[in-house]
Amino acid sequence: MDVKKDLKEFRKKIDPEIEKVLDEMIEASKKEGKIITDSLEQVKKITLSGGKRLRPALMYWGYKGVGGKREKEIIKTSVSIELIHIFLLIHDDIIDNDSKRHGVETIHKKYEKTGKFFPGIGNNAKHFGNSMGIIVGDIVGAIGNRVIYNSDFPPSLIVEALKKLQGIVATVAIGEAQDVITEYRRKALEKEVMDIYKNKTAKYTIEGPLHLGAILGGAGGKILEEITKFSVPIGVAFQIQDDILGIFGSEKKIGKPVGSDIREGKQTILVVKALENADENRRKRLEKLLGKENITGDEIREFRKIIIDTGALDYAKEKTQELVEEGKSHIEKIEFDKRAKNFLSAIADYMAKRDI
Amino acid sequence: MDVKKDLKEFRKKIDPEIEKVLDEMIEASKKEGKIITDSLEQVKKITLSGGKRLRPALMYWGYKGVGGKREKEIIKTSVSIELIHIFLLIHDDIIDNDSKRHGVETIHKKYEKTGKFFPGIGNNAKHFGNSMGIIVGDIVGAIGNRVIYNSDFPPSLIVEALKKLQGIVATVAIGEAQDVITEYRRKALEKEVMDIYKNKTAKYTIEGPLHLGAILGGAGGKILEEITKFSVPIGVAFQIQDDILGIFGSEKKIGKPVGSDIREGKQTILVVKALENADENRRKRLEKLLGKENITGDEIREFRKIIIDTGALDYAKEKTQELVEEGKSHIEKIEFDKRAKNFLSAIADYMAKRDI
Repeated sequence: MDVKKDLKEFRKKIDPEIEKVLDEMIEASKKEGKIITDSLEQVKKITLSGGKRLRPALMYWGYKGVGGKREKEIIKTSVSIELIHIFLLIHDDIIDNDSKRHGVETIHKKYEKTGKFFPGIGNNAKHFGNSMGIIVGDIVGAIGNRVIYNSDFPPSLIVEALKKLQGIVATVAIGEAQDVITEYRRKALEKEVMDIYKNKTAKYTIEGPLHLGAILGGAGGKILEEITKFSVPIGVAFQIQDDILGIFGSEKKIGKPVGSDIREGKQTILVVKALENADENRRKRLEKLLGKENITGDEIREFRKIIIDTGALDYAKEKTQELVEEGKSHIEKIEFDKRAKNFLSAIADYMAKRDI
Repeated sequence: MDVKKDLKEFRKKIDPEIEKVLDEMIEASKKEGKIITDSLEQVKKITLSGGKRLRPALMYWGYKGVGGKREKEIIKTSVSIELIHIFLLIHDDIIDNDSKRHGVETIHKKYEKTGKFFPGIGNNAKHFGNSMGIIVGDIVGAIGNRVIYNSDFPPSLIVEALKKLQGIVATVAIGEAQDVITEYRRKALEKEVMDIYKNKTAKYTIEGPLHLGAILGGAGGKILEEITKFSVPIGVAFQIQDDILGIFGSEKKIGKPVGSDIREGKQTILVVKALENADENRRKRLEKLLGKENITGDEIREFRKIIIDTGALDYAKEKTQELVEEGKSHIEKIEFDKRAKNFLSAIADYMAKRDI
């Protein structure tokens, strides 16, 4: 199975549904004096301009895996997890000061610009932009939740799925808090970083969507546990690969400027391991370069070299490989139909192979 | 019925339930490396240090009004609307740059202070504080939602109530966006201000909670419509009174520094009406004073005088009176039991009488 192709095919099915939900909100907003119509248009642009739809695809396969038959309804309902993802990204982009998402201007940045023209703005344009980002994020979160409430699955299953969903949101938010704190603290233990990966990525990106789909398909108990055993190692592997790309990837590959993870002072497994293994000199250089806002190309190359020379890159790669193997070893135990298992297997391989 | 006493009695019943939910979360957070334990402790402190519990009380009476019998369960479930309120307040306090809530340090302010001690913080302490406020707000929102999911009412009613709940969150967020925009734009029409009052206060504070309770009590259709006819005028009256207090109230009464609404440049019905009626000179003075950060005591008195002299204060008071009468005239049409009707009537009178 070619997972990239599969995700592309899935996108063709889900994107029109996402568009429909957002268009309905845009229409409704026009009745409210149009004041937030622009922001919802921007949300639509951001959402449809990029993203792999990995979460709704996993929700879909979680449902199909346990024998769910309502093809159209599960696709419509999986829009929820994508919109909740967008809600969290809107808040994340404020936190990370990012001005683009999927190549489109972020909400807070857009309003920072608009705000500059307001007579009473003083030097509050940035604060106004962030405020609008917070609010618009909250609105998109509410829309995402509503998609599940309005779905046509039995209410008892919806309520079960919702318990799961809010657990996901709380977990990813906890991971985000851990991430922000360790970033500014400039210090983290391997165990802390692994916890962040588990909360921020594994539970949110892999386990949560699979669980949601499986629950809506009527599954519970043991099958959910087996899904977890697959999801956590695969999700952590996904995040480690992301971190490798964040330091070694080209701008084209990662969609943000080279070295931005270094500039932000991000505490990744690579950084933690390199600091652990480095001699006095290298450690000092790492600490100096990490979080340096005006870092040069030469310094990025120096940083990369230290990551390689300390064995941190090899360590991360081996760890990824181990985790992928661990995750894959659990696929057979999940009571999923054949095609869903193939999808899980393809996703696992994709994690290991995402290229630098 | 003495509504203040009634709310106090209700508080004694609901506060232990709020505490229980937050304590459970605090315990759970300790398993996640304690990184967000402090923030949840702070949320608990903020929540329990103040607030009237008006929203859960209305939810309770909405349920009892339609004949609901499960006293303990509705109180437990109404914790949700209070926690969702706290989630929105946490975000609101970031937006309004407020450092205290219920006399307790706000989340973003607390973390701004903590952040100053982080080695990598540079001049990002305020941004770090705001980031943590965004995240902690999102977590509290998730907890608030979960309270409804975990309640023991029939799933079909829960799903109905949830549709309502997310509508409430989306509506209040839209009102907040309108509010922030008009504040910086320093210009609003009476109609726009009234829309904000409807979205930000009436639907959120009065209609939403009553609807939630009534739905969980099994009501639908016509009764919800009648509740709306009561709630919208009463909620708008509540907000107008709030605005009068915001300009004319003492610090003790309003819990924030005198004149802070003027300093913030808030577009209230008083300001809009005064600008509409003022002659050239007064209009210029109003515009000059509105949003002036270092406004003096004399200037606040001058501002108040213009609000009085232009007839804006009288206009607002008359409007309140009219709206309260309008709301009250609908109480009889709501198919509620006697005691619930008494509560609505007492709430309506309370709106008209909140003193300067």
